[in-house]
Amino acid sequence: MGVCLPFETITFDHAQHALVILDQTKLPGEQVQRRLTAPEEVRDAIRVLAVRGAPAIGVAAAYGLYLVAYRLSGQEASDFWAGIHAAREMLAAARPTAVNLVWALDRVLGAAQQADPPAIAAASMLREADAIWEEDIRVCARIGEYGAALLSDGDGVLTHCNAGQLAATRLGTALAPIYTAHSQGKRLRVFADETRPLLQGARLTAFELMAAGVDTTLICDNMASQVMKNGWVQAVLVGADRVAANGDCCNKIGTSGVAVLANYYGIPFYVCAPTATIDLACASGADIPIEQRAAEEVTELWYETRMAPAGVQVYNPAFDCAEHGLVSGIVTEFGIARPPYAASLAEMMRIKEETNG
Amino acid sequence: MGVCLPFETITFDHAQHALVILDQTKLPGEQVQRRLTAPEEVRDAIRVLAVRGAPAIGVAAAYGLYLVAYRLSGQEASDFWAGIHAAREMLAAARPTAVNLVWALDRVLGAAQQADPPAIAAASMLREADAIWEEDIRVCARIGEYGAALLSDGDGVLTHCNAGQLAATRLGTALAPIYTAHSQGKRLRVFADETRPLLQGARLTAFELMAAGVDTTLICDNMASQVMKNGWVQAVLVGADRVAANGDCCNKIGTSGVAVLANYYGIPFYVCAPTATIDLACASGADIPIEQRAAEEVTELWYETRMAPAGVQVYNPAFDCAEHGLVSGIVTEFGIARPPYAASLAEMMRIKEETNG
Repeated sequence: MGVCLPFETITFDHAQHALVILDQTKLPGEQVQRRLTAPEEVRDAIRVLAVRGAPAIGVAAAYGLYLVAYRLSGQEASDFWAGIHAAREMLAAARPTAVNLVWALDRVLGAAQQADPPAIAAASMLREADAIWEEDIRVCARIGEYGAALLSDGDGVLTHCNAGQLAATRLGTALAPIYTAHSQGKRLRVFADETRPLLQGARLTAFELMAAGVDTTLICDNMASQVMKNGWVQAVLVGADRVAANGDCCNKIGTSGVAVLANYYGIPFYVCAPTATIDLACASGADIPIEQRAAEEVTELWYETRMAPAGVQVYNPAFDCAEHGLVSGIVTEFGIARPPYAASLAEMMRIKEETNG
Repeated sequence: MGVCLPFETITFDHAQHALVILDQTKLPGEQVQRRLTAPEEVRDAIRVLAVRGAPAIGVAAAYGLYLVAYRLSGQEASDFWAGIHAAREMLAAARPTAVNLVWALDRVLGAAQQADPPAIAAASMLREADAIWEEDIRVCARIGEYGAALLSDGDGVLTHCNAGQLAATRLGTALAPIYTAHSQGKRLRVFADETRPLLQGARLTAFELMAAGVDTTLICDNMASQVMKNGWVQAVLVGADRVAANGDCCNKIGTSGVAVLANYYGIPFYVCAPTATIDLACASGADIPIEQRAAEEVTELWYETRMAPAGVQVYNPAFDCAEHGLVSGIVTEFGIARPPYAASLAEMMRIKEETNG
């Protein structure tokens, strides 16, 4: 691949049985690693966005469930499974929108048999969590390859929020095509939306793109229209937290607006998402639960300075959906799904089952 | 009118010869008045946005030029006029985009005759500055009346940046219809875009709407798409810093994107602007100079906490243009201009000349 960023987002320390994450609330100022050994710590890390991004949340939850299994592996089977199921519910409730969270928990849970002794079940669960981690690296690499083919030397690319290495194990989803194209020698100019309220674009995307030597320009979210109008953007690449069966793509708040703008200015709008993010059980974006977050994220900049009048009402949804009619393609590890998505996404899932079966 | 907000944005103290402004860099936390007596202080207040908004900038510049005349009124005519012309250039250069700045300076300058003794010229200039201040109050009230007719009881209204009383003498431009409709008993729900990077929506619009008792909800700029999609917005009202002859409306950065979104969701998009903001000498938005501001406004939140990696490139234009094809109407003090704007704006200017002549 030729792409290697100088940090790890999420790894597991098998000797010490600890999940090691780069605390993203401290970036870009400090690179602080945190070692999590209790499932409550994993849940809290997900909730405060110390670890975030749909693929990384899935990996963290998978290891979080294993941490419970490891702790309870000396117990009676009934106590063991009661503890596992309780932890599964607790972790699943950490954040509601990213489908990868539940997907990863159920994969780890499904890897162990109720008939297995707890120690054997725990070992199976660790193997499955490791498999999810390794798969994510491969999946992101494939998304990078398929997506890089969409980019030409000299292109401007706009991205929203962070769907990079910091949102996954390595390379990320929306940034994987950029890293891959960059390593192929294509010169790109990337515009990173800062992404209010938590500024993942300013803090995380700008940080990791600069670390990789990619030409990066930071803009406020409301500048995307002017950047597109200037003719500086040839493609938009964003990630997704959940993709519905009809191709509606739920992602960080503001994504729907970026899709409308790209459509207006005639710029292709691509969503980069592993098939783990596709949820055929959701018919459309209207079926995807949208997390509402605290008003203070908007009114108190990074919790230090109050920037709005006390008592002001705030609407602070964490996500919105790019309507499928505005999505030019959905880049998965099995290729690029194109409209109509009802057919192409079902086909992707069929290929996935065939491949895994 | 029945609308009276509990603060003054900009007034002139005739006894002490001082321009008194509410320092908008301190809002919403503190209401600090500043007294400006030197033209350099007026220029600096405009530059750092202690006073901002196209109408308020015009009023401030008008009094700023008078302050020079007052200081030099005991001098020889040649020294007096040399000082006046130098100050005119200095004030005109404070900010490039709002046409009201130059319009107000030239009105004050034109009110005095080169043949007049300096003391007489200075008195004429003060009368003209006072006239601009008084006119702005009347103009905003008329915009409020014309604009209120566009709003119905129960409507949701979205606005961007601050084009309220804090951007003018009283009532403002884009917020004038809201205040007027509110005083007519129409219940409105206003969504205020926070408006990065300097958060005039969060700090100023939310502040003054709440002071007036208007139901106000603060959102990040990137949430406007979702708010519109939710069906919560029946009209968008924004101000303008300069309107070109073809109806392209230059306003705070992000306005073009709001216009595209409103168009996509089928919501009327109105620009509220006094005729002083219309510049028929600019054929289109492409002819309007766009101020580029410091990167630190984006990377260091309110200059206290660094929120982006050191050295990141930043694009930070202060304004952009809503394309005339996306503008449903331009609400002026002489009525609402409708497309095609080349004809309707010229007609507005003709009515203005007739009225003033």
